[in-house]
Amino acid sequence: MRITALAGGVGGARFLRGLLHHARRTAPQTSGGNDSDRLELTVVGNTGDDITLFGLRVCPDIDTLLYTLGGGVHEGQGWGRADETHHVAEELAALGAEPQWFTLGDKDFATHVHRSQLLGQGMPLSAVVDRLSARWGLPEQGVRLLPMTDTPVETHVVVEEAGEQRAIHFQEWWVRHRAALPAERFVVAGLDRATAAPGVLDAIREADVVLLPPSNPVVSIGIILGVPGVRDALRGSRAPVVGVSPLVGGRPVRGHADVCLRTIGVEESSAAVAGLYSDFLAGWLVDEDDPMPDRRGLEVLRRPLLMSSVEAAADMAGAALDLGLRLRAERASA
Amino acid sequence: MRITALAGGVGGARFLRGLLHHARRTAPQTSGGNDSDRLELTVVGNTGDDITLFGLRVCPDIDTLLYTLGGGVHEGQGWGRADETHHVAEELAALGAEPQWFTLGDKDFATHVHRSQLLGQGMPLSAVVDRLSARWGLPEQGVRLLPMTDTPVETHVVVEEAGEQRAIHFQEWWVRHRAALPAERFVVAGLDRATAAPGVLDAIREADVVLLPPSNPVVSIGIILGVPGVRDALRGSRAPVVGVSPLVGGRPVRGHADVCLRTIGVEESSAAVAGLYSDFLAGWLVDEDDPMPDRRGLEVLRRPLLMSSVEAAADMAGAALDLGLRLRAERASA
Repeated sequence: MRITALAGGVGGARFLRGLLHHARRTAPQTSGGNDSDRLELTVVGNTGDDITLFGLRVCPDIDTLLYTLGGGVHEGQGWGRADETHHVAEELAALGAEPQWFTLGDKDFATHVHRSQLLGQGMPLSAVVDRLSARWGLPEQGVRLLPMTDTPVETHVVVEEAGEQRAIHFQEWWVRHRAALPAERFVVAGLDRATAAPGVLDAIREADVVLLPPSNPVVSIGIILGVPGVRDALRGSRAPVVGVSPLVGGRPVRGHADVCLRTIGVEESSAAVAGLYSDFLAGWLVDEDDPMPDRRGLEVLRRPLLMSSVEAAADMAGAALDLGLRLRAERASA
Repeated sequence: MRITALAGGVGGARFLRGLLHHARRTAPQTSGGNDSDRLELTVVGNTGDDITLFGLRVCPDIDTLLYTLGGGVHEGQGWGRADETHHVAEELAALGAEPQWFTLGDKDFATHVHRSQLLGQGMPLSAVVDRLSARWGLPEQGVRLLPMTDTPVETHVVVEEAGEQRAIHFQEWWVRHRAALPAERFVVAGLDRATAAPGVLDAIREADVVLLPPSNPVVSIGIILGVPGVRDALRGSRAPVVGVSPLVGGRPVRGHADVCLRTIGVEESSAAVAGLYSDFLAGWLVDEDDPMPDRRGLEVLRRPLLMSSVEAAADMAGAALDLGLRLRAERASA
């Protein structure tokens, strides 16, 4: 069973950890089955959040996926490593190095140092992510993590302050200003000349089901969809695409998806987010009380969308997967 | 009082910390004097030990000078930072990153990250060292630390194993193999095309006294002397050059100076080390029992050469300084 997911950071990682948990807890029922029942998960991670800090290449979404799926994430934060110290960052502050608004722990620094060294030696990001995936035991779980592209891409935010417009890095807007600085628009530097990383388009085309976790539809999934070829692959895939709304009652469960939607002029609702995916979306999980008008060709499933525990995330991911498998079976018999 | 010193790592740093301590403890006696009594110390640090590890530029001797003179050194080791943790290195090991034979603490890593970023932006090493010196309060102590050159220079060691010769980085030979791998010769990559860093030659020419701490005469002071112009500046300086032997009874107080001397075919004795400096050396401190034949133009002073405490180092450095000042006065009245 080949599943491909497009994912941002914390929300995507928790959803996918839930999916793996769901697969494990249902495995005994299928142990008599054949290998095709085994979950093979390809995760296409957003790299638009990537930023160079202190001369080191940091990939926040990719690392959150690695740490979460690998069992090393700081549960309370949802990002970064558990049991972290911050001695490198403290000394960088003593040295007057900027910025100081982005928290990097010591173990996390090692990831960035290693990645930067390999990138500096000319290794493509996808090969670096392969190495990091091995450290986190992802292949053993049937997980293949791919960055959306090997081309350096950076999401910038055009903000207006005191009547003047300037572009700042997405992370500065998101982390430093907590998305509170009025944003005019997003500009994704490098996206137009980016090519999908090796395996990305095939993973979408050849999946049994494609899942969209409740990641930010604008600055996470929206960025992945902007990689040339990705949207076409989704439209042309034989796999049904099933997504999970990141909004409950028009508000994001986590993060600032509402602000991002307003910035691009889209209503803050589950229905409007589904509209962003309308050219390929086949199934859509929304909260039990969210209004969701009927749409031809879109199967809507109502579920509690809070990932308050790994079990809850597994329930949600399992429901999305089951919907995808059902839609796939219906297509096959049609 | 302008003092210039050429220095390697631990031995040089302890000697110079002793010199500063000597200056402070004798300051009350000269407080009625004028500003010319104030110690202005320029330290020319060896950069031949520099190495790129994990993609980061590490300057072991420069950093030992910074940490020791700045009060942040690990006293027991003589290098690295006090109260260090090693979380970055542990995670790099988990990632399978090489090498694992060079110990880097977390606070130390911050220095290397910051330096590498600044170098990557095109800042010359001497300007980077200025920044690091400010963090460690060196200017406030009247200390100006200069790398011997801004040109990347690396000491390699030609070793023979199983009948085959190969060149390894000095640090690999020194740290990993503890200088136990038979060395054929030293090759200093980049030294022939290096130019002395801004201020180095002037600091030698215009000093009142030039000091050579008990640093390794081959791979520390010997490397600095190999920077084009340095040796000529020493020969042409108006300042007497006073050195301290790194050997006691033919053995190094610390490190592997004896092995280095053997490798270049020089006897392991204080007299032979003085011979390496014979074209400019005016004063020479040797251990009380070391044989030291009379040499015309060379004033020999016998002193205990163990820097077992800051006080002992201050006594030794004070004796070297006083000898230099006396030789200078004699030259002036000649």
